[in-house]
Order: sequence, then structure tokens, then C-alpha cells
Amino acid sequence: MARFIKKQKHEIGVAPDDLFFRGEQKVKEVELKIIDFDSNNLEEISITDIDDAVKYYTKDSVTWFNIDGLHNTQIVADIGTKFELESLILSDVMNTEARPKVQEYDNGIFISIKMLRQDSEDDEILVENLSIVFNKSILISFQERTGDVFEPVRDRIRKQKRRIVNSGPDYLAFALLDIVIDNYIYSISVLGQEVEELEDRLLTNPTQSVMEDIIFYKQELNFLRKNIKPAKEMILAFSKIESEFIKKSTHIHIKELMDNINHASELTDSYREILSDQLNIYHTTISTKLNDIIKFLTIFSVIFIPLTFIAGIYGTNFDFLPELHYKYSYFIMLGVMLVIAILMLFYFKKRKWF
Amino acid sequence: MARFIKKQKHEIGVAPDDLFFRGEQKVKEVELKIIDFDSNNLEEISITDIDDAVKYYTKDSVTWFNIDGLHNTQIVADIGTKFELESLILSDVMNTEARPKVQEYDNGIFISIKMLRQDSEDDEILVENLSIVFNKSILISFQERTGDVFEPVRDRIRKQKRRIVNSGPDYLAFALLDIVIDNYIYSISVLGQEVEELEDRLLTNPTQSVMEDIIFYKQELNFLRKNIKPAKEMILAFSKIESEFIKKSTHIHIKELMDNINHASELTDSYREILSDQLNIYHTTISTKLNDIIKFLTIFSVIFIPLTFIAGIYGTNFDFLPELHYKYSYFIMLGVMLVIAILMLFYFKKRKWF
Amino acid sequence: MARFIKKQKHEIGVAPDDLFFRGEQKVKEVELKIIDFDSNNLEEISITDIDDAVKYYTKDSVTWFNIDGLHNTQIVADIGTKFELESLILSDVMNTEARPKVQEYDNGIFISIKMLRQDSEDDEILVENLSIVFNKSILISFQERTGDVFEPVRDRIRKQKRRIVNSGPDYLAFALLDIVIDNYIYSISVLGQEVEELEDRLLTNPTQSVMEDIIFYKQELNFLRKNIKPAKEMILAFSKIESEFIKKSTHIHIKELMDNINHASELTDSYREILSDQLNIYHTTISTKLNDIIKFLTIFSVIFIPLTFIAGIYGTNFDFLPELHYKYSYFIMLGVMLVIAILMLFYFKKRKWF
Amino acid sequence: MARFIKKQKHEIGVAPDDLFFRGEQKVKEVELKIIDFDSNNLEEISITDIDDAVKYYTKDSVTWFNIDGLHNTQIVADIGTKFELESLILSDVMNTEARPKVQEYDNGIFISIKMLRQDSEDDEILVENLSIVFNKSILISFQERTGDVFEPVRDRIRKQKRRIVNSGPDYLAFALLDIVIDNYIYSISVLGQEVEELEDRLLTNPTQSVMEDIIFYKQELNFLRKNIKPAKEMILAFSKIESEFIKKSTHIHIKELMDNINHASELTDSYREILSDQLNIYHTTISTKLNDIIKFLTIFSVIFIPLTFIAGIYGTNFDFLPELHYKYSYFIMLGVMLVIAILMLFYFKKRKWF
Amino acid sequence: MARFIKKQKHEIGVAPDDLFFRGEQKVKEVELKIIDFDSNNLEEISITDIDDAVKYYTKDSVTWFNIDGLHNTQIVADIGTKFELESLILSDVMNTEARPKVQEYDNGIFISIKMLRQDSEDDEILVENLSIVFNKSILISFQERTGDVFEPVRDRIRKQKRRIVNSGPDYLAFALLDIVIDNYIYSISVLGQEVEELEDRLLTNPTQSVMEDIIFYKQELNFLRKNIKPAKEMILAFSKIESEFIKKSTHIHIKELMDNINHASELTDSYREILSDQLNIYHTTISTKLNDIIKFLTIFSVIFIPLTFIAGIYGTNFDFLPELHYKYSYFIMLGVMLVIAILMLFYFKKRKWF
Ligand SMILES: [Mg+2]
Ligand SMILES: [Mg+2]
Ligand SMILES: [Mg+2]
Ligand SMILES: [Mg+2]
Ligand SMILES: [Mg+2]
Ligand SMILES: [Mg+2]
Ligand SMILES: [Mg+2]
Ligand SMILES: [Mg+2]
Ligand SMILES: [Mg+2]
Ligand SMILES: [Mg+2]
Ligand SMILES: [Mg+2]
Ligand SMILES: [Mg+2]
Ligand SMILES: [Mg+2]
Ligand SMILES: [Mg+2]
Ligand SMILES: [Mg+2]
Ligand SMILES: [Mg+2]
Ligand SMILES: [Mg+2]
Ligand SMILES: [Mg+2]
Ligand SMILES: [Mg+2]
Ligand SMILES: [Mg+2]
Ligand SMILES: [Mg+2]
Ligand SMILES: [Mg+2]
Ligand SMILES: [Mg+2]
Ligand SMILES: [Mg+2]
Ligand SMILES: [Mg+2]
Ligand SMILES: [Mg+2]
Ligand SMILES: [Mg+2]
Ligand SMILES: [Mg+2]
Ligand SMILES: [Mg+2]
Ligand SMILES: [Mg+2]
Ligand SMILES: [Mg+2]
Repeated sequence: MARFIKKQKHEIGVAPDDLFFRGEQKVKEVELKIIDFDSNNLEEISITDIDDAVKYYTKDSVTWFNIDGLHNTQIVADIGTKFELESLILSDVMNTEARPKVQEYDNGIFISIKMLRQDSEDDEILVENLSIVFNKSILISFQERTGDVFEPVRDRIRKQKRRIVNSGPDYLAFALLDIVIDNYIYSISVLGQEVEELEDRLLTNPTQSVMEDIIFYKQELNFLRKNIKPAKEMILAFSKIESEFIKKSTHIHIKELMDNINHASELTDSYREILSDQLNIYHTTISTKLNDIIKFLTIFSVIFIPLTFIAGIYGTNFDFLPELHYKYSYFIMLGVMLVIAILMLFYFKKRKWF
Repeated sequence: MARFIKKQKHEIGVAPDDLFFRGEQKVKEVELKIIDFDSNNLEEISITDIDDAVKYYTKDSVTWFNIDGLHNTQIVADIGTKFELESLILSDVMNTEARPKVQEYDNGIFISIKMLRQDSEDDEILVENLSIVFNKSILISFQERTGDVFEPVRDRIRKQKRRIVNSGPDYLAFALLDIVIDNYIYSISVLGQEVEELEDRLLTNPTQSVMEDIIFYKQELNFLRKNIKPAKEMILAFSKIESEFIKKSTHIHIKELMDNINHASELTDSYREILSDQLNIYHTTISTKLNDIIKFLTIFSVIFIPLTFIAGIYGTNFDFLPELHYKYSYFIMLGVMLVIAILMLFYFKKRKWF
Repeated sequence: MARFIKKQKHEIGVAPDDLFFRGEQKVKEVELKIIDFDSNNLEEISITDIDDAVKYYTKDSVTWFNIDGLHNTQIVADIGTKFELESLILSDVMNTEARPKVQEYDNGIFISIKMLRQDSEDDEILVENLSIVFNKSILISFQERTGDVFEPVRDRIRKQKRRIVNSGPDYLAFALLDIVIDNYIYSISVLGQEVEELEDRLLTNPTQSVMEDIIFYKQELNFLRKNIKPAKEMILAFSKIESEFIKKSTHIHIKELMDNINHASELTDSYREILSDQLNIYHTTISTKLNDIIKFLTIFSVIFIPLTFIAGIYGTNFDFLPELHYKYSYFIMLGVMLVIAILMLFYFKKRKWF
Repeated sequence: MARFIKKQKHEIGVAPDDLFFRGEQKVKEVELKIIDFDSNNLEEISITDIDDAVKYYTKDSVTWFNIDGLHNTQIVADIGTKFELESLILSDVMNTEARPKVQEYDNGIFISIKMLRQDSEDDEILVENLSIVFNKSILISFQERTGDVFEPVRDRIRKQKRRIVNSGPDYLAFALLDIVIDNYIYSISVLGQEVEELEDRLLTNPTQSVMEDIIFYKQELNFLRKNIKPAKEMILAFSKIESEFIKKSTHIHIKELMDNINHASELTDSYREILSDQLNIYHTTISTKLNDIIKFLTIFSVIFIPLTFIAGIYGTNFDFLPELHYKYSYFIMLGVMLVIAILMLFYFKKRKWF
Repeated sequence: MARFIKKQKHEIGVAPDDLFFRGEQKVKEVELKIIDFDSNNLEEISITDIDDAVKYYTKDSVTWFNIDGLHNTQIVADIGTKFELESLILSDVMNTEARPKVQEYDNGIFISIKMLRQDSEDDEILVENLSIVFNKSILISFQERTGDVFEPVRDRIRKQKRRIVNSGPDYLAFALLDIVIDNYIYSISVLGQEVEELEDRLLTNPTQSVMEDIIFYKQELNFLRKNIKPAKEMILAFSKIESEFIKKSTHIHIKELMDNINHASELTDSYREILSDQLNIYHTTISTKLNDIIKFLTIFSVIFIPLTFIAGIYGTNFDFLPELHYKYSYFIMLGVMLVIAILMLFYFKKRKWF
């Protein structure tokens, strides 16, 4: 399947409120986890029954309900019913191939964005869709598979850091998006370092493998850009929302998200251009080397071609070939050959061939 | 005829309200079909007399009247008269080469867009113009030929899916456009998979046929983009219309159309760039291979050229050529040749030619 | 003179109200023609005295006064006086190298645009400047030379087509611009067909003449684009004018002009890109062919170089060369040569050179 | 020094109101000239004492005070004091390397723009900074050196042309800017003609000198564009100013300036693209020629290599080489050689090498 | 580490109000310096205790408090407490890898921008983050290391220049930003001169080292652009702020900042394009030279190949080879060879190979 978009024939024309899972199943079992906190209390549990989550819903504390795994339509539908989410939201949650978006609903704000992670330098960047719904008392996050990048936020909550435990789900939403975008920048930074290191190899030893690396990094940056561009639009739309679910004090943070995603976007462009230059340089260096090789061949050939011809002349078996019979002919021939060779070398020197 | 635009000399200066069919006739007979439905009833019939359609017009239910084939000016004119459509609309319906557009009229909203379909991986994308007119009680769709991509919508109506049978023609218009755009994305996805698979062949075996494939996909993506760009503008204009014919609840769906067409547009751009890179890589790989070939030729030539010359020297027939008469001359010559060859190889090794 | 702009030294610093003809004279005599019509009457005459035109000015009917030839400053000045046109308008009419523009004046609206025509496939696109001034009762059109693209409009008037004879000069202005833009699209369509046909020749037989064709079409499209871009801006400005001289019912038509000029602009861009791709493909195909040629040369050379060397060895005339005297030496040599040749071929086969 | 920007270390951090001359001194002595005019009178004098200029300031007539040479800080400061110009204006006047700008002040409007002139076809375009300050009764223009492009305006004043002598300094400012921009277009037109003529040489005889010309014109167009782009922004800002110093009737002229600078900008882009295409074509033509040369070499080599090898075989001195002793061996060998050569030629013909 | 972005894994998910130093430590000890001035007094001291700075805070004079070194979290936190700066500001100050920004807070305006410096022509451009916070009575500047570009501002204060000592911290902020941007332009000017000088070497002697220089300047300009683009956005946002902390008279200066940063941006683009052209020219020149070399080789080979073949024919040892026994055979052979060589030369001459 194509990496940039995976759309299958049976996904065409699905109704906007249909609970139809459009990705690949990436975990065996759906996992449900809750962190409930305010400035005094902290509760962190795994649940199996959605009703266990609902009871936190009515409490004053901030509830972060995280779902890993979207293939089970029934569970998603249940969450929709219990937390009064519209079917349009649920459908969007299950459409993991869709474009990042933000949408204000009557009972909450829906956000979706791609999480990107790069586990090691040589591997492709991994992508996972994240959907967030939040209102005044709860934030529900939906992921495709177990494992995410949010450990620093959980740590801040566990350590009861002042700002996060005193703020609401809107601040929590910001904190999650902030980490997602930080990971964009980190991925670019890892790629970028590799890219900058390419340059030395490029000038000293431009082998096919350098070109293959350039291409690999180009692709990864294309992939990054393809995800960053719509995320940027989404963050911009998010920053313009005026809703009861977003406190005024959170706006300055959302503005910073905007700065960060712009930064990510500009960095991607910078490295893309560097890679374009590098491919150009690779091609040009190859051409330069070709010139050198052919110059070498030409000098060699052009010097020996007339000499070999002369030897050929005196290798003929004509009965009457007077030069063959003079005593010094052989030495004269060698002398003439030497003179020709030296004149040739002078000529090449003059034309700056070496 | 050119694929991107087909304009013929006699089409220049046609009056804006002239019923003049500007495409190619693509079906033998015009086909007329009606689906009439509300949340309780469903009727689906083929008709031959337009008056059979008119009677549904006055009913409270939603009527979807579909016409396949536009070459019969009389039938289109009749539909215009019976359903009170302005001649400007009818003229636009028949101008199948025009740019996608949306236009608000007194008695309805007119939309035109290109339907794209790709029947198999190796074939060109097919295009067909779709025109839609709708008001509060009817939606009329005009197609160039029989067969379309709307089966999933008909299925939803036949299965009496809640949302579609409770909504009006505006929602039906959205549903049709949604499928059109879903097909854009599906086509890109099919092409995209092919494009990503090109890469391996590109690096291991860059033959002329790889280049021809790159060019074919480039063209198809150019063709897609040429159709997607104006569709995007049209959807944007559609989303801004405030009309009695579009219910408030439909606006959230139109916004999603916008997201989807943006997605299609970005995907097209991503793949276009990948293909540009691939063409570049192809060219560069070809240059790299050329270098290798010529290096090989040069090494071989440069080693043997002086050896053959030496043999030539001792093939001459001079009466007085002293070396010929020493006993070990032949072996000395072979030895000297070996030394020269080894020195050459060392030289090439040092210059990293192999 | 340059085709894209013709500016001469003495044209610098001409006052904005100076009646100074800045183009080349393209007809011998100025020709003046009038069509005067309403829904009942039609009069079509050629005149020589401008006063003959003035009498139509005061009538209620719509008057279309067309002038072919701008080199006669006196005639243009007279028209200005008789029809109360500001000197700024007259100066613009005579400045045929200026950019398309629309300008609202107290007593009318001034429009200028380039008419493009392509008489045959292989010729350059011809350009002619068109200026239009209209108010509530008259439309005056100024052309550089006899002959234009407006015959379809004259036909519609002559046939007393309902819409045109019931509308005013504003609708007539639209109808003229509509044909001008239709001709843009037609020209692109003619070029486009040629361009798409280039492709086959490009892959099968990429000769220098293909490249020259690519370049020719590139230039023509550059030329089109150079004229379409400012026309697009002009049409946009025209569509935004709110004036007593433009009836409300005409606005929907001007909007369609906008659609058409956008279509023209997008088509130009599509074909420009296709041509860029084609030039790229041409270059790459040339490089691929070069590889094949040099591979061929290398295989041939590399096989025969050592064989010829061996023959050279046994062509030497040393007194003491033992191999020469064994009975089967010659056949052994031939055998060794065969083995070397076969090994070489295997090597090339393994490296996939053929 | 770089041509696009000349900034010296000691110019960093100059205060915004410092009278610090930042260009190169281009004239020996500052020259001061006055033209004072209304619809009845005209006075044109050279002065040495600034007080001679001040007396015209209070008169009702329009005063045009032109200063050539900016290196004398004292004179500029004096003008500032006598004509009540803010130190910010004076500092801008002396900063001849700055970007074109327009700025409204309490007692006048300040404009700066680059004058470009091309004295002959083969020379670089010359640049000179022009600053203009005007209010209701005076226009002061500052130039870097003697000589300018304003003679046509002076002529119009001397000839007492109606519009210029009846208008104020705002119209005079327009007239000066109009000539500056006319010269932009004229320069482009001169370059453009050269560029279009390049094409023939490009296809028939693509020597290194063609490439050097392409590069030269590219640079000149880059230089033009670098100056036109900010001038365009400045004219746009100028057209938006609503000030007591600009009469309503002048606005239509400023709008035309906008049209002209847009025209200049589009022309520059057109020629830049043509030159890019030409460089591309040059490269491709070179590659095509290389193919031809190498094809020629290969055909020649490949035909003779086996023939020379065969001759070598029969040049060996083996005691036992049966073919040497048949009577027709030599003629058979010649015959075989001919057959090989003919087969080779057929093969090349079949592969369409010639 | 990558030069364009340095982001480390442990920096992901830092809370927005965390005082976490994200750069590299660039000085050993934090240095604190104060300049306090008004139109009468001037005090300039180094301090070690932050309380020494606070006393100036309450005075009416303008206080410029500069901190070099950000690695000491405690000192930054202290400054925050003593000068009532929000933790969000302090966090931004310490995040030296962030994008330039401007942010209005209740008690001041925060600005960050990159200072660029180029110490010598051949070295990379150095970058250092600058943060500024100012309100009505104080400006605090934070730098990463000792040494900056602000000496001209300090000089103007020390010399009690009228405008700077009569203005407030807002004018001081402008003056600092002005110097930062002046240094951008100076850096471009230095690079630009180098770039323009490349051209001669490019056409006369296009060695690999020219290409390496092109690449180096490309990178430096990429680096400049990457920093200038967000600075431009920041200055634009700064120019739009309406705050009690910015006096009206300062706005005209901020507008000039905008002009200057636009100038810098356009210059960068101009030189980037020149470099792209140069790389293109380099590649093309290399190809031209390759053609010349191969032409030379081909002429030489093609002339001698048939001659050597002929000599080979008469070097064969056939018993019956009639030509060998005619008296003038040898001279006839030499004559034929001469004729062949001359014909070949004519042929090449005709095809314009030399
Ligand atoms: Mg859908
Ligand atoms: Mg949805
Ligand atoms: Mg790696
Ligand atoms: Mg996960
Ligand atoms: Mg039309
Ligand atoms: Mg129409
Ligand atoms: Mg396939
Ligand atoms: Mg087809
Ligand atoms: Mg159909
Ligand atoms: Mg991959
Ligand atoms: Mg095709
Ligand atoms: Mg190449
Ligand atoms: Mg003019
Ligand atoms: Mg004019
Ligand atoms: Mg043709
Ligand atoms: Mg022409
Ligand atoms: Mg005409
Ligand atoms: Mg031409
Ligand atoms: Mg300055
Ligand atoms: Mg200034
Ligand atoms: Mg010339
Ligand atoms: Mg100069
Ligand atoms: Mg001057
Ligand atoms: Mg130069
Ligand atoms: Mg952060
Ligand atoms: Mg921050
Ligand atoms: Mg240097
Ligand atoms: Mg550094
Ligand atoms: Mg510092
Ligand atoms: Mg470096
Ligand atoms: Mg090449």
C-alpha cells in the first residue's frame, strides 16, 4: 500500500456518520486508561468497562481518558453513547487516514493530528493518528496503537506540577499537541544532522550510496512536510476558535504552538532545499569526474595512436621499403616517436588538460 | 484531440444561453432515472417521458432525477421548461468542457464538477462531467454517459439509512460530491502505490521503461491536478453560499468536503514531487553508470595501449634492430610488459578507480 | 524588435493625455463601421465621416461603432471630441503596447485587452490590441488592423437573437470579451493537441527536431501566459465595478468571463508543465542512448583489445621466441583467444550490460 | 564591491536621523537647479546659494528644485533647514543604497526609487538613486550624479503643455516616476530583443559564447527584477496614500503607474523564463551533439577493430599457420573483412544510428 | 549536531513555564552590565548582585540591563522575580533554539531574534540568540555569550546623542533591532561580493573548487534566509502592536525596520538565484568541455584507425600477397594514407568540428 495515502475501494462513499474503521488494526485488544487529577488528587487506572470511566465524567477534577486501538466499532460506539459524542465525531475518530482537523461541536472540541516518531536514525518515520475530544471536564484521546509520546505530560501530572494540575482539559489538549509538534521538530533535527553530514561524503567520495541516502532523506522530509502542512492549518484554525471550552489563559500557549509548527515547517523547507542542492552537486561532481576520466583516456590514446601507427608502417612486408635497410632507421624511428610524444604532452599542458 | 482541453472552432462565441452541446456524444440514447424517497417511502423508476418526472416535483419527498447523455438538445430543453431552469443553467449543463463551478440562481443552486475514475492500474484516468441542480424538493443530475460512482449513495437510500432519508436535496448534493472527491483520493492512492513501487526498480535497474512509467504517472497526476484545483475553488465557493436551499446542518458536511479536496490536492502535490525526484534520480543513476562503463573502458585501454605499442615496435622489419637478436629479449619484453601493467593497476587503485 | 514588448526610445515620457500612436501601422486606411440595433431594427453600414456615426449616438438603440486602424491621430481625436471621450482614454487607445486594463470614467467604461489568434498549427500566435469604450447607448471598439474574431456576435445581432438585441452595450461588451477569451482557450487547445502528440516521437525517436518543437511550443505558451495573466486581473477588476453603465443582469455573465479566463490560465500552466517534463525526458532519453552507445563500444573494444595484443606479441620478430616453433601454437593461440572472448562476454552478461 | 548591495562596516548602526552619506561620491561639485512655473510664467536657473531657492518656495507657482550630488553633508543639511525637512528625510536622501520607499510626513511626502538606464546594448544597466520630496508648492529632487532621464518632462514644462503647467507638484512627481518606470520598460525591451535573437544561434551554433550571453542577460534581468520588485511595492503604497498634498485628479495617473510597473515586472519574469529555457536548451543541444560525436567514433571503431584484429592474426610469425600458404588466402581475408564491415553497417542502420 | 536546528530528546515536552536551558553553555560566568541614562546623566557599570540592578528600575531614567550567559537557571529566575517577569518570558529567554517572536505581556513586551555575525570572508556565519524585554522604564537584553554588535548604540548613548537619550526603552529596542538587521545586510553584502567574484573563475577555469565555493555560499545564504524569514514575520508583528510601551514617534522607526528586513530578504533571494544559475553554468561548462575533449579524441582516432588497419593488412605474412612485390607499393600505400587523412580532415572541417 502507498505510504502517503491508503484508501481502499470499499471506503468510497461511506456516510459521514457511519462508524467504519478505515485503518489497519494495529493492536490486538483495545486498551482503556484513565488519569483523573486536580491540584490535590491524582488517580491513574486501567479499565475494561467503559462505565468505570463515566463516573469520573461528573467529577470536578480533570479526566484524561485514553483509548489505544480503534478497530472495535462497538467500543467506540459505546464511548460515543456514554460521553454524548456525536456520530460525526466518532466517524472521524475511526477515519485514521483523514487530514488533521479541528471542529467545534456543541458539547466539545474535536482535534485530530498525526503523531510522528523516529525510533532510530536509519529507519523510516512512523505515523499514528491521534484524535482528541475535550470539553470543560474531560479529555478523551484516541490512538491507533499502544505507546505514545505523552510520557512527559503524564510525569508533569504525576509530579503535580502547578500549571497543569490547576488548568483544565484545554491546557491538557495544548500540552499533548505541544509534545506532538516537539516530536516533529526532533525528527527534523535527527534527519537534519544526517543530511548535513552527507556533505563531506558528497565531495570526497560521491558513490551511488550517497545518492541513495539523499533520496531516502528527501522522502522522509516529503513525508514530514505532507503531515506538517495540514497540521499547521489545523493549529491556525484552533488558535482562532473562541469557545467556552478554551480558557483565555490558554490562548497564549496555542499561539506558541503556532510558532513551533511554523518553525517545523520552515526547517523542513530548509533541509529539503539542502537536499535538492546536494543531488545537484552529486550530479555535477559525477560529470566532473567523467571529464577527468575521459581526459586521461584521451591523453593516453592520442599519444600512442600515432606511435603505434608508425610501428605498423615498418611492420609491413613490402619488398621495396627503403627505410628498413638504413643502419640507424630503428633509432631514428624511436627518436621521432619520442619527439611526437613530447610535443603531444606539451600541447596537452598548454591546453591545461593536466 | 488534446486530453486536457477539447475546444473546437465552431464552439467559439456561442451565446451564454444557447443550448449547444459541446462535448462528444458518449451514449446512444438518453437515459432518465428517478429515485423518490423520504423516511417512509422509496420509489425507483426509469422513465422515457419527462412528464413522468414532473409529478414527483410537487410531492413533499426528495426527488433525485438523473439524466445520462446530453447530446439531445430537445430533451435538455424540455427538462428546462418543465422544471423552470434558466437557459443559462441548461447551456452550462451542455458545456461539458467548462471549468467546475457553483452558481446560485433564484430557483436553485447549480454545481458542476468532473467525475474521475480509474478502472485499472495501468490505464489512464477517465473523466466525465457532472452537473447538479437542486432546490428544496428536487435534485437533477446530468451525466455524459451511463454508469457512475454513486452506487453507495443509492444503497444508502435503498437501505433507508436515517440521515440521508431524513435530509433534503442539499444533503444529497453533498453525498454525491463526497463520493466524487472520495474517488479523486482513491485514484491518487492507486497511482501513489504504483509510484512508490517504482523506486526499487529505479535504483537497481534503471531502464528506459522505468522512465516511461515515471512519465505516465506524471501525466496522470498532472491530469488529476488540473481537475482538482478548480474543484477546490468550487467547493470553497459552495461552502460560502448562504441560501435557503442549504440547511444549516449541511454546512458541517460541506466543510468536510473542503478538507477532503484539500487532502486530495496535497496528496497530488506530494506524489508530483516524488516523481520529479525520481526522474532526477533516474538521470543521475544513468550518469553514474556511464562513469562506471567509461572507467572500465579506460582502465582496459590504458593498460593495453602501451603493451600493444611495444609489441608493434618489435614487429617492425628493420634490418638493424639489435634487441631482436639477444637470447632473452622476448622474455625481457614480457617482463617489462607485466611490470607496466602492474604499475598501471597500482595507479588506478591509488586513484580509487576500482 | 522583441515580440513580448516593443518600446522605442521616443516613447519614453509621453504625457498621459498625449495622442501619440505607439504601435506599428498595420492598415493603410482607417475603416469605420457601425451596427445599430434594438429588438426591432438593425442597421449595418460603413462610414467615412465621423458625423455619420454621431447621429446614432442620440438614438435609443444600441450602437456599435468599430474603428480599424489607429495611426491617424486626427481621426482618433475627432472621435474623442464628437463622443466626449477624455484625452486619457484616447491616449490609452493609441498605446497598443500597454497592459490590459479597465477604467471607469464619468461618461463610460474603458477596457483594453489583447486579441490572440492562431491561423494555423505551425505558425506563431498573432496579437492585436482591442480597446472598448461603452456607456448606456454606444460601444466604440478600436482595433489595430482590419479583421477580427467577432463574426459570431455580428451573426447573433443580424439574426436578432433575443438576448443580445434586448440588452445594452454592457452585454455587447461582455459578448466581445467572451469571444476574445474563447479564442485564448481555442489557441491553447490547438497548441495542446500538438504538445500531446509530441510525446510519442519523444520516446521513440528523440531527434533534435523534437526538441526544437518543444521549444517552439514553450515560447508560444509563454506568449499566451504573458497575455492571459494581465487579462485575468483586468476581468477581475471589471467584475468588481459597480456602475450605472453595467446592468445587474450582466454581472452573471462577467462572472462567467472570470471562470473562462481562469480556465485559460490553468490550461496554459498545465501545458507549460507538460513541456517542461518533455524537455527533461528528452535530455534523459539522450543520456540513456549515450549509455547504450558507449556500452556497445566498450564491450567491443574490451573484447578485442587483449586479443589484438596477443596477436601483436606473436607478430614480433625476436630470434628466440619459442612458442612460434611448436606445431600447435597457432591453434592454441586461437583457442586461448576464444576462451578470453567467452569469459569477457560472461562478465558483461553478469554485469547486465546486455 | 558587490553590485546588488554595497554595505560597509562603518555604516552599521548609523542613527536614523544622522546625516551620513552612504554611497560613493559620483560628482565633483553639487549642482543646484530650479524650474519655477505656472500656466503663465516659466523660470529656469542654476543657483549656488540655497537662499536663492527659498524665495521661490513662498511663490504660488510650482517650484522644481533639483540637486545633483549628495556627498556634501552641509548642503543637504542647509536644504533641510531652509525647507523645513525633518532630519529623517535627509538621512534617507543620503542613504542611496536603501530600498525604494514612500513616507508621508507632516509637511510633505517623501519618495525614493532607483533610476535605471542602459546606454548601449552590450553594457550593464546603470543605477542611480532618486529621492523626491514634495508638498503643495515645491518638489525637491535629489540625485547622485549629473544627468537624468527627465528631459521630456522639462520639455513639456518649457512648451507650457496645458496639463503639467496647470497641475501641482503632485502631478510633477507622477511625471517623474512615470519616466523612471518607462525607462524600466525600455531597458527590458532592449534586453528582450537581444534575448529573442539568441535563439537562432542557440540551435544552429551553440558555442560557449552563446552561454556567456545567456548568463549576462540573466544577470541584467536579475538586477532589473531586484530593483523593480520593491519599486512596485512603493508605487502600491503611494497609490493608497490619502493626503492633502495629492489632488484627486492625480490618482488616476498613479493608478497608471501601477499598471506600468506591473507590466515591467511581468515582462522581466517572461524574459527570465525564456532565458532559463535557453540555458536548458543549450545544455540539451550540447548533449545531443555529444551523442552524435560518440556515435561516429563508435561506428568507426567497431567496424575496424575486428578487421585490424584479423590482420594481426595473419601477421603472426608461427612456423605452422596453414592459412598463410593457400593461394587465395589473402583475397579470402579481404572478402571476409568486407562482409564483416557490411554486416556491421547493416546493424547500425537497423539500430538507426545513422 | 545539525546547524539549522539543535533539538535534543530530553527537550521534548518541557512545560511552557519551565526554566530549562536548551542551548549549549557558551560562557563560563554570567556577566551583568547596566547602562542608565537620560538627557542629563549617564551611568555604566558591571554588577554581580542583581539587587544592584533593581535600584535603577525605579528611577525615571532609561535603564539598559544586559545579561551575557543563560546557563545559570538561578540567575535568570532571580531576574524574573526582581523585575516581575512572567515565567513564560523566562522560559522563552532560555529556549535559545526557538523561532524569533514578539509577545505583548501585561508588564512589558518580549522580543527574540537571532544576531548573525560574519567575522571573516571565509568563515561560516555565527549565530547567537538575543532576547529583549522592555517596558516604560527598563530594557533587559539576554545574550548567549559575551560580545555583541551593539557598540554603536552604546557610543551614541555615551556621546549623549539627542534622539537616543531623549527617547525611552522602546526607541532603544528599535536601535538594537536596527543594528541586528544592519548586520544581516552587511553579511549578505560580504557574501554577495564573493559570489559576484566567482563568475570569472566560473567561465575561465571551472574546477571542482569553484563548485565547492558555490555550495559553501549557497549554504550560508540558506542559513541567512532561514533566520531572516521568521525575523521578518516578527518585525511585522512588532510593527502592528499598539501598546502603552511603544511611543507614537517610535512607529516610523519600526516601519523602517520593516523596510530593512525586506531588503535583506530580497537580497538573499537575489544571491540565491545567482548561485543557482552559477551551479547550472558550471554543469553546462563541464559538459561543453567534455564535448571538446571527446571531439579531439574522435578526430584523432578516426583518422588513424583506417591507416593502422591498412598497415596491418600489409604486415600479414601470406605467401601470395601481390601488392607486396610491386616496386612502388610502399609509396602508393603512404600516398593513399595521406589522401584518406586529408579527406577525413575535410569531413571534420565541413561538420565544423574544429
Ligand atoms: Mg467520506
Ligand atoms: Mg467526518
Ligand atoms: Mg544514518
Ligand atoms: Mg499510540
Ligand atoms: Mg462561451
Ligand atoms: Mg454559461
Ligand atoms: Mg502497474
Ligand atoms: Mg483517455
Ligand atoms: Mg455517467
Ligand atoms: Mg520507502
Ligand atoms: Mg497519453
Ligand atoms: Mg547530465
Ligand atoms: Mg507613459
Ligand atoms: Mg494612459
Ligand atoms: Mg504541427
Ligand atoms: Mg507577432
Ligand atoms: Mg482587427
Ligand atoms: Mg520565434
Ligand atoms: Mg540604519
Ligand atoms: Mg531613515
Ligand atoms: Mg548585443
Ligand atoms: Mg553599476
Ligand atoms: Mg542624475
Ligand atoms: Mg557582470
Ligand atoms: Mg515546548
Ligand atoms: Mg514559551
Ligand atoms: Mg573568499
Ligand atoms: Mg556555527
Ligand atoms: Mg553576545
Ligand atoms: Mg558546512
Ligand atoms: Mg549533461
